[in-house]
Amino acid sequence: MPDLRKDPIVGRWVIVSTARSRRPVDYKAFKSEYRYQVCPLCAGQEDKTPPEVLAYRPHGGLPNSPGWTLRVVPNKFPALMVEGSLDREGVGLYDKMNGVGAHEVVIETPEHRKTLASFSEKEFEDLLWAYRDRILDLKKDARFRYIMIFKNYGEPAGASLEHSHSQLIALPVIPTVVIEEMLGAKSHFEEKERCIFCDIIRQEIMDGSRLVAENQEFVAITPFASRFPFEVWILPKRHASSFQEGQKSQYEALAKIFLDVLKRLNKALMNPPYNFILHTAPLQDKASDNYYHWHFEIMPTLTQVAGFEWGTGFYINPTPPEEAAQFLREITIP
Amino acid sequence: MPDLRKDPIVGRWVIVSTARSRRPVDYKAFKSEYRYQVCPLCAGQEDKTPPEVLAYRPHGGLPNSPGWTLRVVPNKFPALMVEGSLDREGVGLYDKMNGVGAHEVVIETPEHRKTLASFSEKEFEDLLWAYRDRILDLKKDARFRYIMIFKNYGEPAGASLEHSHSQLIALPVIPTVVIEEMLGAKSHFEEKERCIFCDIIRQEIMDGSRLVAENQEFVAITPFASRFPFEVWILPKRHASSFQEGQKSQYEALAKIFLDVLKRLNKALMNPPYNFILHTAPLQDKASDNYYHWHFEIMPTLTQVAGFEWGTGFYINPTPPEEAAQFLREITIP
Repeated sequence: MPDLRKDPIVGRWVIVSTARSRRPVDYKAFKSEYRYQVCPLCAGQEDKTPPEVLAYRPHGGLPNSPGWTLRVVPNKFPALMVEGSLDREGVGLYDKMNGVGAHEVVIETPEHRKTLASFSEKEFEDLLWAYRDRILDLKKDARFRYIMIFKNYGEPAGASLEHSHSQLIALPVIPTVVIEEMLGAKSHFEEKERCIFCDIIRQEIMDGSRLVAENQEFVAITPFASRFPFEVWILPKRHASSFQEGQKSQYEALAKIFLDVLKRLNKALMNPPYNFILHTAPLQDKASDNYYHWHFEIMPTLTQVAGFEWGTGFYINPTPPEEAAQFLREITIP
Repeated sequence: MPDLRKDPIVGRWVIVSTARSRRPVDYKAFKSEYRYQVCPLCAGQEDKTPPEVLAYRPHGGLPNSPGWTLRVVPNKFPALMVEGSLDREGVGLYDKMNGVGAHEVVIETPEHRKTLASFSEKEFEDLLWAYRDRILDLKKDARFRYIMIFKNYGEPAGASLEHSHSQLIALPVIPTVVIEEMLGAKSHFEEKERCIFCDIIRQEIMDGSRLVAENQEFVAITPFASRFPFEVWILPKRHASSFQEGQKSQYEALAKIFLDVLKRLNKALMNPPYNFILHTAPLQDKASDNYYHWHFEIMPTLTQVAGFEWGTGFYINPTPPEEAAQFLREITIP
């Protein structure tokens, strides 16, 4: 009998197959085939991107020239435009506004064929600092209400460039997904005066069956109502609503656990395509400090989303998270 | 400057590119390659499926034997199990219940290589009757609160069988997507004492720019905040919350307009993969009769959903619905 499991934060139901559950080998392996040797995101190609808004050059050097280890540039084909005012407008029944926002590409490495899972801890930590630096900079722009950071790795996960990169989109409205999470977390807080994410972390550490990795500052778990097989969330043990307000030691610890999780996924699922998304509180939202809890959600692309998911908002997950966690725990990382 | 447009029912924002908008030829054509001549859904293969729960045999004949024009069978690998009780249970913070439900396959034709777009009006109407017949039958089971009917056509849209079919899933809980639609529609009704869908239909007929097709009973529109390029909704002009309560003349009119829309999409986008979903009121929910309005949503699979969409619940649509509607209107159907 399959389980119907409810996500305690947003109330979303997931059908978890328990009878014929799928192991890692049952998913089609993703063949990452590099088509190019070099691309506009590579070192030496700096003139092929818009001018950088941030770069780490450990040995110095001129902007928009080689020598960088990480570089952030505006997206050449942005989904939203950074210039302009919001101009909210009604069209009969409908609401619209100008598509004002920032859309940036975080070039994670100067090397065309280096994947995130093979980063050093220092390189990974720098990526987290870059996210933080960009959030702090864009936060000053009063038009923006939310900053969404995410990564699409591999074509099946929506990556259109093969060079390792993540993306940042600053939005003039708060995303629906974030609003739903906040409403769920708020209602839990109002009832119990506790953060629901803190409650989840406590229960998962005690239970252990969905624990993938843990260090002093973070836990990595396969959530109880995982939408996708081998979905992993990484949450800070210390309650905090916003990613950018962490201390140095936390980014170090996050780099360690994040890399560890990516290596495990990589080995268990043979280099799977994936998305990861930073869930953090809206900008200038002090009210949610008590009840919202930032975290990363990592979702390997192993199944397809189709009519059922579109129509219901529910998901069918053929690998119970307890089994996924066990597979991932048992991986040995050199 | 792109548009940020808000769906008036659920409040979802969509980024609509207006500058470099994509025309039909800019989307990669889908090559539908049939791998098989015959499959377990074909005429003569009735013993390869679980026994039928419904079949139309215009010239009579025995159950589970050839002679049918349409046949409904339980899914051989169901996502939910039809036997059993719900057994709601708490697991610490979490809620779960048994995965009780029905999962059926509507075999739309006995012919392996016939597509829905090439159906006759009579054949299409029969499909609608089959949906209705199954809803009326499953509605008697008090464990079910919602019946979700959908179709995945083509591998990119999630179809795992190439023989033309749709699916029905009876659920013991109301889907999140439906709850959100109902909440939005209810709040509009409470404020204005009008159905929001009726308001949309009136505005779209008056405006005309997003109208794809119209007959006495139905309109087909590209919604103002279309998530996907060439997304089309078909709505009954007469207010009604539930699909299964229509009159014969309505199913005839629906078959006509639905086929017309599929033919237009098929010609404009060269046989695109798509999903369609029936949105109808929950079973045994009399309260929503006033404010909910059943309809079909058809979504061609032309773009990929990735990190941005997962993280935000927003969508990026590279073809403005006004342009999509114009393309579809200008198609000539023989």
